[in-house]
Amino acid sequence: MAQYQPNLVETMVSNMRARLLEGLKDSPSQAQQSIQYVGVPKLGIGMDASVTPLPHSGLCLCQTTDFFYPLVDDPYMQGKIACANVLSDLYAMGVITCDNMLMLVGVSSKLTDKERDVVIPLIMRGFKDTATEAGTNVTGGQTVINPWITIGGVATAVCQPTDVIMPENAVPGDVLVLTKPLGTQVAVNAHQWLDIPERWNRIKLVVSEDDIRKSYSRAMDSMARLNNTAAKLMHKYNAHGATDVTGFGILGHAQNLAKNQKGEVAFVIHNLPVISKMTAVAKACGNMFQLLQGFSAETSGGLLICLPREQAAAYCKDIERQENYQAWIIGIVERGDRTARIIDKPRIIEVPGKDRDGDLW
Amino acid sequence: MAQYQPNLVETMVSNMRARLLEGLKDSPSQAQQSIQYVGVPKLGIGMDASVTPLPHSGLCLCQTTDFFYPLVDDPYMQGKIACANVLSDLYAMGVITCDNMLMLVGVSSKLTDKERDVVIPLIMRGFKDTATEAGTNVTGGQTVINPWITIGGVATAVCQPTDVIMPENAVPGDVLVLTKPLGTQVAVNAHQWLDIPERWNRIKLVVSEDDIRKSYSRAMDSMARLNNTAAKLMHKYNAHGATDVTGFGILGHAQNLAKNQKGEVAFVIHNLPVISKMTAVAKACGNMFQLLQGFSAETSGGLLICLPREQAAAYCKDIERQENYQAWIIGIVERGDRTARIIDKPRIIEVPGKDRDGDLW
Repeated sequence: MAQYQPNLVETMVSNMRARLLEGLKDSPSQAQQSIQYVGVPKLGIGMDASVTPLPHSGLCLCQTTDFFYPLVDDPYMQGKIACANVLSDLYAMGVITCDNMLMLVGVSSKLTDKERDVVIPLIMRGFKDTATEAGTNVTGGQTVINPWITIGGVATAVCQPTDVIMPENAVPGDVLVLTKPLGTQVAVNAHQWLDIPERWNRIKLVVSEDDIRKSYSRAMDSMARLNNTAAKLMHKYNAHGATDVTGFGILGHAQNLAKNQKGEVAFVIHNLPVISKMTAVAKACGNMFQLLQGFSAETSGGLLICLPREQAAAYCKDIERQENYQAWIIGIVERGDRTARIIDKPRIIEVPGKDRDGDLW
Repeated sequence: MAQYQPNLVETMVSNMRARLLEGLKDSPSQAQQSIQYVGVPKLGIGMDASVTPLPHSGLCLCQTTDFFYPLVDDPYMQGKIACANVLSDLYAMGVITCDNMLMLVGVSSKLTDKERDVVIPLIMRGFKDTATEAGTNVTGGQTVINPWITIGGVATAVCQPTDVIMPENAVPGDVLVLTKPLGTQVAVNAHQWLDIPERWNRIKLVVSEDDIRKSYSRAMDSMARLNNTAAKLMHKYNAHGATDVTGFGILGHAQNLAKNQKGEVAFVIHNLPVISKMTAVAKACGNMFQLLQGFSAETSGGLLICLPREQAAAYCKDIERQENYQAWIIGIVERGDRTARIIDKPRIIEVPGKDRDGDLW
């Protein structure tokens, strides 16, 4: 189903979006007006989910939408990934219960009727199954035809203002935790290159076919995993704010999050957990991914969380105990001018690939 | 922006959707479970908006999403139409206040950077302006690139169960009211044909170029108009249920609505209000639109409402007084087997075209 280089299109799209969305922002006076009438400030364009106060009930409406192109060759897994990716924006705000989901599907005009009737229901089933796993339901959606397949959805929660962890309260002394490894899109691309000799020739000196398959399995598994437990534990360990890592890469999202802080802080990233061998692959193809620079696009990436220093290790241990997945302390929050950077020679943490049958490698 | 025949694609897509969505329906036991715990039944796939009870607060969440292809050549108007079209699904359920909107944009990969930076912000501004007119805000959205432009959104309301008018309580003796004329897609297509000589030759004996331009202006104006007042008045005049007329045409949606009724009723349509000259155009091109059969796709069409007979005339008058637009009694509800039909020779009500400057023609 992949008819393009997801990494490049994603980057192009991300840049375009940022520019186009400028036009949607409220003027300052409008934004300030809407802050006043309820305890929780209104949060709009640019953050992970929108938060809209519902004045009549004291509740607030948290919403997010996302849709993108398929990037794995298993339609069922693609549906699961799309669903996990949409929900992740709610989880990044600490919202752990989604009340309703809608599914958005762009069906390729290039599929035959038969292909369509096999592939699209599998995607939908994957999406629905992950919604069920998250304790929510898909009650509607929209389907249109377009040459390129797209898949995504809308996640909505109605909650108390206190259920939301606003992404703005980091303080110097906090540490940064990341809950999924980087390198998903490198792994997805490398896996496509197994079938493209001129691409494969560029990386075959640094990886084996088996490496690629295991890294690809790890990437699929990681992208289909919900950030739900990660979000629940943000409350338990008093997180000061978070975002999820997607199209702008780890540093792009760290910069967005830093810019949104109330306090004068800066984020410094020391460690980069990366799916095994993907650092070598990224280097072998001339840094087109900008992986170690922090700008390689991720899909359904982990939460990047600001946690009090004394809580971070316990947070990571708790995730591992509950889910059998690692989380990592990757950096610190210091005094600064609301920027984020990666140190000169970050430590690369190689995260094992995965056999198809689920064993770690 | 039109690169296809909207009517044909819309019909194809509508049929495909209906089939694909079957797979999303809950099994009967699941659906029944969710009916029990709150006064308002859960309403999902197949109706205009989903209604999800929020057990902790006694409120319910009403949501709808829609996106489609541009069909007019004015990007700003296209944005307004897309927004009115999305909101219409809430209005059809009697929900008159939208708490939040998200915008969904598929940007064509065939636009140059310059075209894109002119066209897309205009579409977004139109969408946003109509959202403002409806008393709501656009707080987020998603943008992707795809060869065919798509534009749409998500509308969400959190409301009391009593704010929702379930589309299921029609009784024999009710009458059917329609709040916008039919023929929008015929007008849109005919307008495109002004530039396609072999098409234009087929219809030029029955319409003038000026006719087409006025009908097209009427169609744009009609599609960009909110069904908000129509929805408010449904409460005032005790409507028994409604739907909005879109991709399946007037009869397709009447059939859906009839099938959803609790009582053993059938809908009979006697009158078809159609934008001026569009009946002649539809006939001249061999009924490809199925306009008089009731299956011509509409975009952002009117509400089709079941009203108590003694209230219907007052309803229509009230709309005309408030908005200076006509609504029409188009049929009756009788005892039957939950079907809908148009009588053999329905009366065609010709609805005047519109000058660009706003005067009626």
